[in-house]
Amino acid sequence: MSRLIVQKYGGTSVGSIERINKVADNIKRHTLQGDRVVVVVSAMSGRTDELLNLAAQISENPSRREMDALLSSGEQVTSTLLSLALHHRNVAAHSYMGWQIPINTDSSHTAARILSINNKQLKKDLKQGYVPVIPGFQGVDANNNITTLGRGGSDTTAVAVAASIKADECQIYTDVDGIYTTDPRIEKQARLLEKVTLEEMLELARLGSKVLHSRSVGIAARHQVPLRVLSSFKDGAKQQGTLVVKRGDKEMEETIVAGIAHSSKEAKISIIGVPNTPGIAADILRPLSEENIEVDMIVQNAGAAGTTDFTFTVSRSDYKKSRKLMTKISEKLRAAKVNGDDTIAKVSVVGLGMKSHSGVAATMFEALAAAGINIQIISTSEIKISVIVEENYVELAVRCLHKAFNLHKK
Amino acid sequence: MSRLIVQKYGGTSVGSIERINKVADNIKRHTLQGDRVVVVVSAMSGRTDELLNLAAQISENPSRREMDALLSSGEQVTSTLLSLALHHRNVAAHSYMGWQIPINTDSSHTAARILSINNKQLKKDLKQGYVPVIPGFQGVDANNNITTLGRGGSDTTAVAVAASIKADECQIYTDVDGIYTTDPRIEKQARLLEKVTLEEMLELARLGSKVLHSRSVGIAARHQVPLRVLSSFKDGAKQQGTLVVKRGDKEMEETIVAGIAHSSKEAKISIIGVPNTPGIAADILRPLSEENIEVDMIVQNAGAAGTTDFTFTVSRSDYKKSRKLMTKISEKLRAAKVNGDDTIAKVSVVGLGMKSHSGVAATMFEALAAAGINIQIISTSEIKISVIVEENYVELAVRCLHKAFNLHKK
Repeated sequence: MSRLIVQKYGGTSVGSIERINKVADNIKRHTLQGDRVVVVVSAMSGRTDELLNLAAQISENPSRREMDALLSSGEQVTSTLLSLALHHRNVAAHSYMGWQIPINTDSSHTAARILSINNKQLKKDLKQGYVPVIPGFQGVDANNNITTLGRGGSDTTAVAVAASIKADECQIYTDVDGIYTTDPRIEKQARLLEKVTLEEMLELARLGSKVLHSRSVGIAARHQVPLRVLSSFKDGAKQQGTLVVKRGDKEMEETIVAGIAHSSKEAKISIIGVPNTPGIAADILRPLSEENIEVDMIVQNAGAAGTTDFTFTVSRSDYKKSRKLMTKISEKLRAAKVNGDDTIAKVSVVGLGMKSHSGVAATMFEALAAAGINIQIISTSEIKISVIVEENYVELAVRCLHKAFNLHKK
Repeated sequence: MSRLIVQKYGGTSVGSIERINKVADNIKRHTLQGDRVVVVVSAMSGRTDELLNLAAQISENPSRREMDALLSSGEQVTSTLLSLALHHRNVAAHSYMGWQIPINTDSSHTAARILSINNKQLKKDLKQGYVPVIPGFQGVDANNNITTLGRGGSDTTAVAVAASIKADECQIYTDVDGIYTTDPRIEKQARLLEKVTLEEMLELARLGSKVLHSRSVGIAARHQVPLRVLSSFKDGAKQQGTLVVKRGDKEMEETIVAGIAHSSKEAKISIIGVPNTPGIAADILRPLSEENIEVDMIVQNAGAAGTTDFTFTVSRSDYKKSRKLMTKISEKLRAAKVNGDDTIAKVSVVGLGMKSHSGVAATMFEALAAAGINIQIISTSEIKISVIVEENYVELAVRCLHKAFNLHKK
């Protein structure tokens, strides 16, 4: 059956000429099957760091506009090389830069959002039998400035392109072969999931499964793009990966807990003794959003009379900047003090329908207590329970929770 | 005096972060003097070869469109890094890619010609006190494909930009500090020329002085752009370089011979015994021009009754391809045979007003004969006499001619 597929290959999947040739083989296999394919690629692994290092040698606080133009050269190289590798296999292909499609974004340099994608050239190429090869991560703003999408940018490009051309499937090729019940490097009995729901995926990705970025899963959910996670290091014909399905598409007898996610690169900041007046939370968060810092967990506890304690977590790389901003705002808000800790980690139990099973929380907290792990913060949503623990305990926490929920058994 | 200057920095001038910082210092010095500066940069030395090597690992005959997109990433990196280095020195700057200006070219991938330059953004930036930093060598065609200009492309971009904004001077910064009477690496007594005429420059560049490409000098001549050649490795405040002047601007008592040029990377091809009918030369040259192969010397001798021998030289890198094309065309033209030699070099005596001094040719041939150097081909123009010699003799030929014309004395 001929299908319209978007395939995204991450940095390690195109990290060398050998890898690029393997990717071209996989694309050719699909075109021989009759599939029409659009490819989205990241920069070769290591190249982005190389470019960041060059810039860091020149300036500690480089212009974001220039950084975007600099970094976008990475994907440009990969997309042209992959295009050449396809030609070499007699697969007709064209590379395009973000501005050539164009992939229109806003002007938030280094963290731009996709506004629209012009699919005219893509549709023309597909009709004429060409494989369009697009660099992920990059776009162009209304004033013709090169922009980049920030973290998870290549996944976001792939899903947005898939939505734009109404692809039958968006395949995310990475260095893992699907979504596991937890990180197999930590728990050897981790099991590959055939299906996860979008909601579970959203949590598993955002909480550090490192497979798919939450932005891309969010777009996939809104535009109902079927997503499949596969390994570019395995023979494409011999793997099914993990299909990300809609809630209704999962079997009735689904397991309550799908997996255990973890993220070590976290940091928390607490503003202690803030006067508890309306609008305080907004006053605290505004300076962070203005700097494009993503806040993850937010917990507010009542403190002493008339005051409140406000705690949130951010990515560890944003810790110093966030702390500086909070010290500034806390003076303005007459808070008692600001605390911080950048040696924390997050562990989450993720599963659809968990909410109606209060037993999940009990099982989770009991298991952690039995392992002697102290819980610093708890946060829950419809499909997950997350706890912040000291960084050193993260592997232990993952393993004991995986066992507590019997995730090694199907 | 405030001037409008275009500065071009070649690959070795921006070959490392240290070099890029030096370039930024030089630009800042000019802006502090009140000069308005537009900068054109090449890729960091070595990067283009790195990219070519990556492509060569994938395909022996890569698509020219993809190669252009691939190679253009090199200058993109340099222009953004230089822009960051300027910011770090509090010099306002913006980098632009070729398509952002845009620098409009035809669609001859890997050897495109500039059709027009939109100077609107450049003029706006200059008015607002920004230094625009443009990657040389690259442009965009009418269908939004990335193009590159081929050999000498960055010089060409610089001169074309200077012509477009009517710059007071186009400064070409390179690893030599001006135009010498001959290559100082071969003849130690070589002398820096304060001025050369455009015509002499045109010959000195085309014949392998490796300082300025003939295309850029040609554009400079047509648009009367004052060109100055300087070293980026010397303190900009302490050098004058060589100014390329119009013929009338040179002193009356000018020397007849300005310098000795040489080029080792040459090859010759002879088509022997071609029927001497009208249009033969065009039939021979057409397949070469269709492949964008530049032909340098062309010599035609009468051969046996009704036939002629046709010899031309090309860059050595084009030898194999040219020879293949000629073998094909010679069968069609019923030529006797095709000979070739890719171990030849060219040595030229260059100077304005040489034509009216027949003594120059005599002195040249006598000097070569005295050194025991056999002359294979002779070709003359208004301001030069070129000879093809066996490659091994090129340094000897340069030194004996430099001495014969007393070029070490002012």
